[in-house]
Amino acid sequence: TGSHSAEADSQTEWTDVQKKIIPWKNSTPSLDLETAFQDRAAKLGKSNSRLIVVASLIDKPTNLGGLCRTSEIFGASALVVGSLHYIQDKQFQHLSVSAEQWLPLVEVKPSQLVDYLQQKKTEGYTIIGVEQTAKSFDLTEYCFPEKSLLLLGNEHEGIPANLIHHLDVCVEIPQQGIIRSLNVHVSGALLIWEYTRQQVIKQKQQQ
Amino acid sequence: TGSHSAEADSQTEWTDVQKKIIPWKNSTPSLDLETAFQDRAAKLGKSNSRLIVVASLIDKPTNLGGLCRTSEIFGASALVVGSLHYIQDKQFQHLSVSAEQWLPLVEVKPSQLVDYLQQKKTEGYTIIGVEQTAKSFDLTEYCFPEKSLLLLGNEHEGIPANLIHHLDVCVEIPQQGIIRSLNVHVSGALLIWEYTRQQVIKQKQQQ
Repeated sequence: TGSHSAEADSQTEWTDVQKKIIPWKNSTPSLDLETAFQDRAAKLGKSNSRLIVVASLIDKPTNLGGLCRTSEIFGASALVVGSLHYIQDKQFQHLSVSAEQWLPLVEVKPSQLVDYLQQKKTEGYTIIGVEQTAKSFDLTEYCFPEKSLLLLGNEHEGIPANLIHHLDVCVEIPQQGIIRSLNVHVSGALLIWEYTRQQVIKQKQQQ
Repeated sequence: TGSHSAEADSQTEWTDVQKKIIPWKNSTPSLDLETAFQDRAAKLGKSNSRLIVVASLIDKPTNLGGLCRTSEIFGASALVVGSLHYIQDKQFQHLSVSAEQWLPLVEVKPSQLVDYLQQKKTEGYTIIGVEQTAKSFDLTEYCFPEKSLLLLGNEHEGIPANLIHHLDVCVEIPQQGIIRSLNVHVSGALLIWEYTRQQVIKQKQQQ
Protein backbone atom coordinates (compact mmCIF):
# COMPACT_ATOMS: atom_id res chain seq x y z
CA THR A 1 0.00 0.00 0.00
CA GLY A 2 3.04 2.27 0.14
CA SER A 3 2.21 3.62 3.57
CA HIS A 4 4.11 1.16 5.72
CA SER A 5 6.81 3.02 7.56
CA ALA A 6 10.06 1.72 8.97
CA GLU A 7 8.59 2.15 12.45
CA ALA A 8 6.02 -0.54 11.74
CA ASP A 9 8.26 -3.20 13.23
CA SER A 10 9.49 -1.10 16.12
CA GLN A 11 8.94 -2.96 19.36
CA THR A 12 8.11 0.15 21.34
CA GLU A 13 5.20 1.16 19.13
CA TRP A 14 3.79 -2.35 19.04
CA THR A 15 3.63 -2.98 22.76
CA ASP A 16 0.00 -2.06 23.28
CA VAL A 17 -1.24 -3.72 20.16
CA GLN A 18 0.71 -6.93 20.47
CA LYS A 19 -1.10 -8.03 23.56
CA LYS A 20 -4.28 -8.40 21.56
CA ILE A 21 -2.78 -9.83 18.38
CA ILE A 22 -2.67 -13.55 17.71
CA PRO A 23 -0.52 -14.40 14.70
CA TRP A 24 -1.70 -17.70 13.28
CA LYS A 25 0.57 -20.77 13.49
CA ASN A 26 2.45 -19.55 16.55
CA SER A 27 1.97 -22.77 18.48
CA THR A 28 -1.78 -23.21 19.12
CA PRO A 29 -3.83 -20.60 17.30
CA SER A 30 -7.24 -21.98 18.19
CA LEU A 31 -6.44 -22.11 21.88
CA ASP A 32 -5.12 -18.55 21.74
CA LEU A 33 -8.19 -17.36 19.91
CA GLU A 34 -10.46 -19.09 22.38
CA THR A 35 -8.63 -17.40 25.25
CA ALA A 36 -8.81 -13.98 23.64
CA PHE A 37 -12.49 -14.57 23.01
CA GLN A 38 -13.16 -15.43 26.64
CA ASP A 39 -11.08 -12.49 27.90
CA ARG A 40 -13.02 -10.12 25.76
CA ALA A 41 -16.38 -11.62 26.69
CA ALA A 42 -15.46 -11.30 30.36
CA LYS A 43 -14.39 -7.71 29.82
CA LEU A 44 -17.69 -6.91 28.18
CA GLY A 45 -19.57 -8.72 30.92
CA LYS A 46 -21.67 -10.81 28.57
CA SER A 47 -21.51 -13.79 26.30
CA ASN A 48 -20.19 -13.11 22.88
CA SER A 49 -20.58 -14.33 19.33
CA ARG A 50 -18.59 -17.06 17.60
CA LEU A 51 -18.19 -15.10 14.40
CA ILE A 52 -14.84 -14.93 12.61
CA VAL A 53 -14.49 -12.31 9.86
CA VAL A 54 -11.79 -13.20 7.32
CA ALA A 55 -10.55 -10.20 5.35
CA SER A 56 -7.24 -11.64 4.09
CA LEU A 57 -8.21 -11.04 0.46
CA ILE A 58 -8.96 -7.35 1.02
CA ASP A 59 -6.28 -4.87 -0.14
CA LYS A 60 -7.48 -1.42 0.89
CA PRO A 61 -6.53 -0.18 4.37
CA THR A 62 -9.74 1.90 4.50
CA ASN A 63 -11.89 -1.20 4.04
CA LEU A 64 -9.86 -3.14 6.62
CA GLY A 65 -10.00 -0.30 9.14
CA GLY A 66 -13.74 0.03 8.65
CA LEU A 67 -14.25 -3.71 9.04
CA CYS A 68 -12.17 -3.64 12.20
CA ARG A 69 -14.47 -1.01 13.72
CA THR A 70 -17.66 -2.76 12.63
CA SER A 71 -16.46 -6.24 13.71
CA GLU A 72 -15.48 -4.92 17.14
CA ILE A 73 -18.83 -3.20 17.65
CA PHE A 74 -20.77 -6.37 16.89
CA GLY A 75 -18.52 -8.49 19.08
CA ALA A 76 -16.93 -10.70 16.43
CA SER A 77 -14.40 -13.05 18.02
CA ALA A 78 -11.64 -12.12 15.54
CA LEU A 79 -10.79 -10.27 12.36
CA VAL A 80 -8.36 -12.11 10.08
CA VAL A 81 -6.18 -9.92 7.86
CA GLY A 82 -3.57 -10.72 5.20
CA SER A 83 -0.89 -8.80 7.06
CA LEU A 84 -0.64 -7.26 10.51
CA HIS A 85 1.30 -4.38 8.97
CA TYR A 86 -2.02 -2.84 7.94
CA ILE A 87 -2.53 -1.83 11.58
CA GLN A 88 0.25 0.76 11.22
CA ASP A 89 -1.37 2.31 8.16
CA LYS A 90 -2.79 5.78 8.83
CA GLN A 91 -5.88 5.18 6.71
CA PHE A 92 -6.54 1.95 8.60
CA GLN A 93 -6.21 3.76 11.92
CA HIS A 94 -8.38 6.65 10.79
CA LEU A 95 -11.21 4.26 9.94
CA SER A 96 -10.74 1.77 12.78
CA VAL A 97 -10.90 4.45 15.53
CA SER A 98 -8.65 2.21 17.66
CA ALA A 99 -10.97 -0.82 17.53
CA GLU A 100 -7.85 -2.94 16.88
CA GLN A 101 -7.03 -2.51 20.57
CA TRP A 102 -10.13 -4.48 21.54
CA LEU A 103 -10.67 -6.92 18.70
CA PRO A 104 -8.30 -9.90 18.31
CA LEU A 105 -6.54 -9.59 14.95
CA VAL A 106 -5.12 -12.70 13.30
CA GLU A 107 -2.67 -12.73 10.40
CA VAL A 108 -3.39 -15.29 7.69
CA LYS A 109 -1.76 -14.62 4.33
CA PRO A 110 -3.83 -15.34 1.21
CA SER A 111 -1.49 -18.28 0.44
CA GLN A 112 -2.34 -19.79 3.86
CA LEU A 113 -6.11 -19.44 3.49
CA VAL A 114 -6.86 -22.96 2.26
CA ASP A 115 -5.12 -24.48 5.29
CA TYR A 116 -6.72 -21.98 7.64
CA LEU A 117 -10.24 -22.63 6.35
CA GLN A 118 -9.71 -26.39 6.59
CA GLN A 119 -8.59 -26.06 10.19
CA LYS A 120 -11.59 -23.92 11.09
CA LYS A 121 -13.88 -26.52 9.55
CA THR A 122 -12.43 -29.16 11.85
CA GLU A 123 -13.19 -26.79 14.75
CA GLY A 124 -16.85 -26.79 13.76
CA TYR A 125 -17.06 -23.52 11.85
CA THR A 126 -19.22 -23.19 8.76
CA ILE A 127 -17.19 -21.45 6.04
CA ILE A 128 -19.38 -18.83 4.36
CA GLY A 129 -18.22 -16.97 1.25
CA VAL A 130 -19.74 -13.56 0.57
CA GLU A 131 -20.00 -13.86 -3.19
CA GLN A 132 -22.48 -13.90 -6.04
CA THR A 133 -22.49 -17.36 -7.62
CA ALA A 134 -25.12 -19.54 -9.32
CA LYS A 135 -25.55 -21.48 -6.08
CA SER A 136 -25.46 -18.60 -3.59
CA PHE A 137 -28.11 -18.29 -0.91
CA ASP A 138 -29.99 -15.00 -0.74
CA LEU A 139 -29.09 -13.16 2.49
CA THR A 140 -32.83 -12.77 3.27
CA GLU A 141 -33.11 -16.57 3.38
CA TYR A 142 -29.88 -17.75 4.99
CA CYS A 143 -29.76 -18.91 8.64
CA PHE A 144 -26.31 -18.44 10.15
CA PRO A 145 -24.90 -21.23 12.34
CA GLU A 146 -23.56 -20.12 15.73
CA LYS A 147 -19.99 -20.85 14.61
CA SER A 148 -19.80 -18.88 11.38
CA LEU A 149 -16.71 -17.84 9.46
CA LEU A 150 -17.26 -15.13 6.84
CA LEU A 151 -14.80 -15.01 3.95
CA LEU A 152 -14.91 -11.65 2.17
CA GLY A 153 -13.69 -11.23 -1.40
CA ASN A 154 -11.09 -8.95 -2.89
CA GLU A 155 -12.27 -5.47 -3.96
CA HIS A 156 -11.75 -6.26 -7.64
CA GLU A 157 -11.67 -10.03 -8.03
CA GLY A 158 -13.97 -11.29 -5.30
CA ILE A 159 -13.18 -14.80 -4.03
CA PRO A 160 -10.86 -16.73 -6.39
CA ALA A 161 -12.14 -20.00 -7.88
CA ASN A 162 -9.66 -22.19 -5.99
CA LEU A 163 -11.07 -20.94 -2.67
CA ILE A 164 -14.73 -21.24 -3.70
CA HIS A 165 -14.25 -25.04 -3.62
CA HIS A 166 -13.33 -24.89 0.06
CA LEU A 167 -16.45 -23.00 1.15
CA ASP A 168 -19.43 -24.69 2.77
CA VAL A 169 -21.82 -22.14 1.34
CA CYS A 170 -21.98 -18.82 -0.56
CA VAL A 171 -24.30 -16.03 0.49
CA GLU A 172 -25.16 -13.03 -1.67
CA ILE A 173 -26.86 -9.74 -0.91
CA PRO A 174 -29.83 -9.08 -3.24
CA GLN A 175 -29.10 -5.85 -5.09
CA GLN A 176 -31.47 -3.98 -7.32
CA GLY A 177 -29.48 -0.94 -8.42
CA ILE A 178 -27.71 -0.13 -11.66
CA ILE A 179 -24.35 0.28 -9.92
CA ARG A 180 -22.70 -3.12 -9.88
CA SER A 181 -22.06 -3.95 -6.27
CA LEU A 182 -21.70 -2.83 -2.69
CA ASN A 183 -18.41 -1.78 -1.15
CA VAL A 184 -16.79 -4.79 0.56
CA HIS A 185 -16.85 -3.15 3.98
CA VAL A 186 -20.60 -2.58 3.61
CA SER A 187 -21.17 -6.14 2.35
CA GLY A 188 -19.26 -7.47 5.32
CA ALA A 189 -21.16 -5.17 7.71
CA LEU A 190 -24.52 -6.41 6.41
CA LEU A 191 -23.57 -10.07 6.96
CA ILE A 192 -22.12 -9.31 10.40
CA TRP A 193 -25.37 -7.50 11.25
CA GLU A 194 -27.56 -10.30 9.89
CA TYR A 195 -25.61 -12.87 11.93
CA THR A 196 -26.00 -10.66 15.02
CA ARG A 197 -29.71 -10.06 14.41
CA GLN A 198 -30.39 -13.78 14.14
CA GLN A 199 -28.40 -14.53 17.30
CA VAL A 200 -30.29 -11.83 19.24
CA ILE A 201 -33.63 -13.27 18.12
CA LYS A 202 -32.54 -16.82 19.03
CA GLN A 203 -31.45 -15.68 22.48
CA LYS A 204 -34.78 -13.95 23.08
CA GLN A 205 -36.68 -17.05 22.01
CA GLN A 206 -34.70 -19.16 24.50
CA GLN A 207 -35.56 -16.87 27.43
CA THR B 1 -15.01 20.81 3.26
CA GLY B 2 -12.39 22.87 1.45
CA SER B 3 -12.56 20.80 -1.70
CA HIS B 4 -15.21 22.73 -3.58
CA SER B 5 -13.62 24.21 -6.65
CA ALA B 6 -14.69 27.19 -8.71
CA GLU B 7 -15.81 24.75 -11.41
CA ALA B 8 -18.48 23.37 -9.13
CA ASP B 9 -21.02 25.85 -10.44
CA SER B 10 -19.95 25.62 -14.05
CA GLN B 11 -22.94 24.83 -16.24
CA THR B 12 -20.95 22.66 -18.64
CA GLU B 13 -19.78 20.22 -16.00
CA TRP B 14 -23.20 19.94 -14.44
CA THR B 15 -25.12 19.00 -17.56
CA ASP B 16 -25.12 15.25 -17.10
CA VAL B 17 -25.76 15.34 -13.40
CA GLN B 18 -28.49 17.97 -13.43
CA LYS B 19 -30.93 15.76 -15.27
CA LYS B 20 -31.17 13.50 -12.25
CA ILE B 21 -31.08 16.16 -9.54
CA ILE B 22 -34.21 17.54 -7.94
CA PRO B 23 -33.48 20.59 -5.79
CA TRP B 24 -36.20 20.94 -3.20
CA LYS B 25 -38.55 23.95 -3.31
CA ASN B 26 -38.18 24.42 -7.05
CA SER B 27 -41.93 24.42 -7.70
CA THR B 28 -43.33 20.98 -6.69
CA PRO B 29 -40.74 18.79 -5.01
CA SER B 30 -43.01 15.89 -4.17
CA LEU B 31 -44.30 15.63 -7.73
CA ASP B 32 -40.74 15.77 -9.06
CA LEU B 33 -39.62 13.11 -6.66
CA GLU B 34 -42.55 10.90 -7.55
CA THR B 35 -41.73 11.27 -11.25
CA ALA B 36 -38.05 10.50 -10.70
CA PHE B 37 -39.06 7.48 -8.64
CA GLN B 38 -41.32 6.15 -11.39
CA ASP B 39 -38.72 6.82 -14.09
CA ARG B 40 -36.15 4.89 -12.18
CA ALA B 41 -38.51 2.02 -11.38
CA ALA B 42 -39.39 1.80 -15.07
CA LYS B 43 -35.72 1.84 -15.98
CA LEU B 44 -35.04 -1.01 -13.60
CA GLY B 45 -38.05 -2.90 -14.87
CA LYS B 46 -39.54 -3.53 -11.45
CA SER B 47 -41.34 -1.86 -8.61
CA ASN B 48 -39.18 0.04 -6.23
CA SER B 49 -39.03 1.02 -2.59
CA ARG B 50 -40.50 4.14 -1.01
CA LEU B 51 -37.47 4.80 1.11
CA ILE B 52 -35.99 8.29 1.41
CA VAL B 53 -32.54 8.58 2.97
CA VAL B 54 -31.88 12.01 4.49
CA ALA B 55 -28.17 12.77 4.92
CA SER B 56 -28.39 16.58 5.24
CA LEU B 57 -26.69 16.52 8.64
CA ILE B 58 -23.68 14.56 7.38
CA ASP B 59 -20.49 16.54 6.71
CA LYS B 60 -17.97 14.10 5.28
CA PRO B 61 -17.93 13.62 1.51
CA THR B 62 -16.71 10.03 1.97
CA ASN B 63 -19.77 9.14 4.04
CA LEU B 64 -22.10 10.86 1.57
CA GLY B 65 -20.48 9.17 -1.43
CA GLY B 66 -20.71 5.78 0.29
CA LEU B 67 -24.36 6.36 1.19
CA CYS B 68 -25.07 7.36 -2.39
CA ARG B 69 -23.67 4.02 -3.65
CA THR B 70 -25.49 1.97 -1.01
CA SER B 71 -28.81 3.83 -1.43
CA GLU B 72 -28.69 3.35 -5.19
CA ILE B 73 -27.96 -0.37 -4.91
CA PHE B 74 -30.94 -0.94 -2.61
CA GLY B 75 -33.23 1.15 -4.78
CA ALA B 76 -33.95 4.01 -2.39
CA SER B 77 -36.20 6.59 -4.05
CA ALA B 78 -33.90 9.50 -3.16
CA LEU B 79 -30.89 10.61 -1.18
CA VAL B 80 -31.26 14.02 0.48
CA VAL B 81 -28.02 15.96 1.01
CA GLY B 82 -27.26 19.30 2.65
CA SER B 83 -25.66 20.66 -0.51
CA LEU B 84 -25.50 19.44 -4.09
CA HIS B 85 -21.94 20.77 -4.24
CA TYR B 86 -20.81 17.55 -2.56
CA ILE B 87 -21.33 15.77 -5.88
CA GLN B 88 -18.32 17.61 -7.30
CA ASP B 89 -16.08 16.50 -4.45
CA LYS B 90 -13.45 13.95 -5.51
CA GLN B 91 -13.80 11.91 -2.32
CA PHE B 92 -17.56 11.77 -2.84
CA GLN B 93 -17.09 10.60 -6.41
CA HIS B 94 -14.46 8.04 -5.42
CA LEU B 95 -16.87 6.42 -2.96
CA SER B 96 -20.09 6.83 -4.95
CA VAL B 97 -18.69 5.09 -8.08
CA SER B 98 -21.09 7.24 -10.16
CA ALA B 99 -24.23 6.09 -8.33
CA GLU B 100 -25.32 9.77 -8.32
CA GLN B 101 -26.14 9.35 -12.01
CA TRP B 102 -28.88 6.87 -11.19
CA LEU B 103 -30.17 7.91 -7.78
CA PRO B 104 -32.27 11.08 -7.46
CA LEU B 105 -30.41 13.54 -5.22
CA VAL B 106 -32.35 16.24 -3.41
CA GLU B 107 -30.81 19.30 -1.73
CA VAL B 108 -32.29 20.19 1.66
CA LYS B 109 -30.11 22.40 3.84
CA PRO B 110 -30.01 21.62 7.58
CA SER B 111 -31.95 24.86 8.23
CA GLN B 112 -34.76 23.59 5.93
CA LEU B 113 -35.03 20.17 7.53
CA VAL B 114 -37.92 20.90 9.90
CA ASP B 115 -40.08 22.11 7.01
CA TYR B 116 -39.00 19.23 4.82
CA LEU B 117 -39.79 16.58 7.44
CA GLN B 118 -43.19 18.15 8.08
CA GLN B 119 -44.00 18.07 4.40
CA LYS B 120 -42.97 14.43 4.08
CA LYS B 121 -45.21 13.58 7.05
CA THR B 122 -48.18 15.06 5.22
CA GLU B 123 -47.25 12.84 2.26
CA GLY B 124 -47.58 9.78 4.49
CA TYR B 125 -43.95 9.13 5.34
CA THR B 126 -42.92 7.92 8.77
CA ILE B 127 -39.95 9.99 9.95
CA ILE B 128 -37.37 7.66 11.48
CA GLY B 129 -34.33 9.01 13.29
CA VAL B 130 -31.25 6.79 13.48
CA GLU B 131 -30.19 7.70 17.00
CA GLN B 132 -29.65 6.26 20.46
CA THR B 133 -32.22 7.75 22.83
CA ALA B 134 -34.07 6.51 25.93
CA LYS B 135 -37.11 5.81 23.75
CA SER B 136 -35.40 4.30 20.71
CA PHE B 137 -36.62 1.04 19.21
CA ASP B 138 -34.05 -1.73 18.82
CA LEU B 139 -33.42 -2.38 15.12
CA THR B 140 -34.06 -6.11 15.70
CA GLU B 141 -37.62 -5.24 16.77
CA TYR B 142 -38.66 -2.39 14.49
CA CYS B 143 -41.03 -2.95 11.54
CA PHE B 144 -40.50 -0.38 8.80
CA PRO B 145 -43.57 1.14 7.13
CA GLU B 146 -43.56 1.07 3.32
CA LYS B 147 -43.12 4.86 3.22
CA SER B 148 -40.09 5.32 5.44
CA LEU B 149 -37.84 8.36 5.71
CA LEU B 150 -34.52 7.75 7.47
CA LEU B 151 -32.87 10.77 9.09
CA LEU B 152 -29.18 10.14 9.75
CA GLY B 153 -27.25 12.13 12.34
CA ASN B 154 -24.11 14.20 12.07
CA GLU B 155 -20.77 12.36 12.48
CA HIS B 156 -20.04 14.10 15.77
CA GLU B 157 -23.31 15.45 17.14
CA GLY B 158 -25.91 12.99 15.93
CA ILE B 159 -29.41 14.42 15.49
CA PRO B 160 -29.84 17.78 17.27
CA ALA B 161 -32.51 18.04 19.98
CA ASN B 162 -34.72 20.44 18.01
CA LEU B 163 -35.07 17.84 15.24
CA ILE B 164 -35.68 14.91 17.58
CA HIS B 165 -39.07 16.47 18.42
CA HIS B 166 -40.12 16.23 14.78
CA LEU B 167 -39.42 12.53 14.43
CA ASP B 168 -42.12 9.87 14.57
CA VAL B 169 -39.72 7.31 15.99
CA CYS B 170 -36.06 6.68 16.80
CA VAL B 171 -34.34 3.43 15.93
CA GLU B 172 -30.98 2.32 17.31
CA ILE B 173 -28.61 -0.44 16.36
CA PRO B 174 -27.73 -2.69 19.32
CA GLN B 175 -23.97 -2.49 19.78
CA GLN B 176 -21.89 -4.61 22.12
CA GLY B 177 -18.34 -3.41 21.48
CA ILE B 178 -16.09 -1.13 23.47
CA ILE B 179 -15.70 1.31 20.58
CA ARG B 180 -18.49 3.85 20.89
CA SER B 181 -20.46 3.67 17.68
CA LEU B 182 -20.68 2.64 14.08
CA ASN B 183 -19.65 4.86 11.21
CA VAL B 184 -22.71 6.78 9.93
CA HIS B 185 -22.49 5.23 6.46
CA VAL B 186 -22.55 1.77 8.02
CA SER B 187 -25.44 2.69 10.35
CA GLY B 188 -27.38 4.00 7.37
CA ALA B 189 -26.53 0.91 5.32
CA LEU B 190 -27.83 -1.40 8.07
CA LEU B 191 -31.18 0.43 8.26
CA ILE B 192 -31.48 0.55 4.47
CA TRP B 193 -30.78 -3.19 4.40
CA GLU B 194 -33.23 -3.95 7.19
CA TYR B 195 -35.96 -1.96 5.38
CA THR B 196 -35.16 -3.85 2.17
CA ARG B 197 -35.10 -7.25 3.90
CA GLN B 198 -38.52 -6.64 5.45
CA GLN B 199 -39.98 -5.49 2.13
CA VAL B 200 -38.61 -8.59 0.35
CA ILE B 201 -40.15 -10.87 2.98
CA LYS B 202 -43.52 -9.04 2.77
CA GLN B 203 -43.55 -9.37 -1.00
CA LYS B 204 -42.83 -13.10 -0.79
CA GLN B 205 -45.63 -13.58 1.75
CA GLN B 206 -48.09 -11.84 -0.59
CA GLN B 207 -47.25 -14.16 -3.49
